[in-house]
Amino acid sequence: MKDTARHISIHHGNGGVRMKALIDDIFLHAFDNDFLNNQSDSAILPVTGKNIAFTTDSFVVDPLFFPGGNIGKLAVCGTLNDLAVSGARPIYLSAGFIIEEGFNIRTLERIVHSMAKEAAVSGVKIVTGDTKVVNSGKCDKIFINTSGIGLIDDMHLSIGSGIRVKSGDKILLNGPPGEHGMAIMQTRGIFNFKSNLKSDCVSLSPLIKRMLKASGRMGFLRDATRGGIATVLNEIAGKCNVGLEVDETCIPVNTDVRVMCELLGFDPLYIANEGKVIAVVDDSDADDVLKVMHKMKTGKNAAIIGEVTSDHKGKTVLKTSAGGKRILDELVGDQLPRIC
Amino acid sequence: MKDTARHISIHHGNGGVRMKALIDDIFLHAFDNDFLNNQSDSAILPVTGKNIAFTTDSFVVDPLFFPGGNIGKLAVCGTLNDLAVSGARPIYLSAGFIIEEGFNIRTLERIVHSMAKEAAVSGVKIVTGDTKVVNSGKCDKIFINTSGIGLIDDMHLSIGSGIRVKSGDKILLNGPPGEHGMAIMQTRGIFNFKSNLKSDCVSLSPLIKRMLKASGRMGFLRDATRGGIATVLNEIAGKCNVGLEVDETCIPVNTDVRVMCELLGFDPLYIANEGKVIAVVDDSDADDVLKVMHKMKTGKNAAIIGEVTSDHKGKTVLKTSAGGKRILDELVGDQLPRIC
Repeated sequence: MKDTARHISIHHGNGGVRMKALIDDIFLHAFDNDFLNNQSDSAILPVTGKNIAFTTDSFVVDPLFFPGGNIGKLAVCGTLNDLAVSGARPIYLSAGFIIEEGFNIRTLERIVHSMAKEAAVSGVKIVTGDTKVVNSGKCDKIFINTSGIGLIDDMHLSIGSGIRVKSGDKILLNGPPGEHGMAIMQTRGIFNFKSNLKSDCVSLSPLIKRMLKASGRMGFLRDATRGGIATVLNEIAGKCNVGLEVDETCIPVNTDVRVMCELLGFDPLYIANEGKVIAVVDDSDADDVLKVMHKMKTGKNAAIIGEVTSDHKGKTVLKTSAGGKRILDELVGDQLPRIC
Repeated sequence: MKDTARHISIHHGNGGVRMKALIDDIFLHAFDNDFLNNQSDSAILPVTGKNIAFTTDSFVVDPLFFPGGNIGKLAVCGTLNDLAVSGARPIYLSAGFIIEEGFNIRTLERIVHSMAKEAAVSGVKIVTGDTKVVNSGKCDKIFINTSGIGLIDDMHLSIGSGIRVKSGDKILLNGPPGEHGMAIMQTRGIFNFKSNLKSDCVSLSPLIKRMLKASGRMGFLRDATRGGIATVLNEIAGKCNVGLEVDETCIPVNTDVRVMCELLGFDPLYIANEGKVIAVVDDSDADDVLKVMHKMKTGKNAAIIGEVTSDHKGKTVLKTSAGGKRILDELVGDQLPRIC
């Protein structure tokens, strides 16, 4: 029989005494900061400058825990990364929980602890939140939404209608693709062998901050999550109306990921990442940016993987390791739901 | 057989071509604005002033459509109201969707259309979003998270450690409690009679703006949602360390709500609202605030329902219509999950 005191009940979501206790004991305890502790309907937050970055992401990853992280760490890093690639300094996060009745409160504590730890490491505060409980069978364990606000101190990044990507620019990638997706697949138990593969789930904010500083003005920056690096490359080509040429032999490789992908018939370039960023920088800045990347743990395997061309606009061409060339298409279908 | 082209498939959540089409056809089409149309990882947003309000809410209401609204309208109004009662002018919203595989795209369009309409009426923009799809049976149809940012032009409201509520202050309520909760119960088909009861789901921002202007400096302001007005009253008493005395005969009544609550053995004071606000104002300002409330549709049944006392600190005492007095306790358990 379940110890109901240690499991989420429907009453934890009703706005009453038990919800208040859950918020006090778990969330305020872990996320402790003055903005949140006020427990007003909104957090009132100081901002500097004339522009902020604002983003949102819901996390439904299954399983909740995997080598290299869990849904909580992912929910913080994922949103931080969306802010960082927008040229912003992440500062405030919200956290919205949808929890299935019967969920173990100890597990919730572990997830919340990971969120708090990751937020603290990154110098961001979780300042506002919400908790909903649904009946058993009406959601799968726990879903977390994080929305984030970042301050824009200096705009080193071309964005929106001002995007500036041009022929000759270099394309940089900070490490081997596909680690998150394959770590999740491995945790789902589909391989009959063991590996030490971990998700690359990490906050890229410190790396990106240095990359932006080292570049004169960065042309494009995006974290490659769902759809993998192929999807980001196609996005650059489409959005900036340029061609991209990528050299497969220059793309860093994780051997475990390559083997797992071969077994499943997948291409690592389409597999989800949670700690990979693609940057387009002026040819003259590329080496400087690469140098600062190599000094960071999150960029130690960084490489220049290709360049922008004036040919085949809107398309990404991959020079394969076999010496051929092929179009790197947009992702149509895949077999990896709930990867984040 | 399902027309798969008109239903959400797992591929709509994979970051690829079908997800892009869904975002373009449904979300960008409905929410159309420059910030969102940029489709960057974060929206880059101008802000004025030194402080912003930031809040988040997930919506899991069941059923999705009910008299007076649907999950989409609720998701916009609910977050706008949290910003408004914080003394902020709502300006930007995010929208995060978790959708069950097989969900009807026409229904999604109706929900999204409601969101767009409600945002337009309130002068806010939905500037960033996220879509996740989970396998059939892993969530209940659709859950929506909205996070919101408001600008704080003038601080007419005491908040956080500066809360100023004192003996003699008047407690104002803008209309009869319990309409949202009972409208949901009615839609669930638990009553064997018909009524015209509608949810009070509405943006309170215009009303609150006028209330704040009419008050010198408002002591406390909160929308009464889950847990009903009793929960807000208890919160004021606890947070401000004062006693409250509320006169039951002064609380506006919706006859349908009263009858339904009697049938179910519920107290309307604990039933959820989505368009009700409780304000604590200085005695000398109370009539002025009430006057501006009465001029608005959302405040036409507003009333002074009680006052702050120096007795029984931390407690709310209800003078009942029968002439007695009883403590209005905090909500412990209830029978109304997924009301919002």
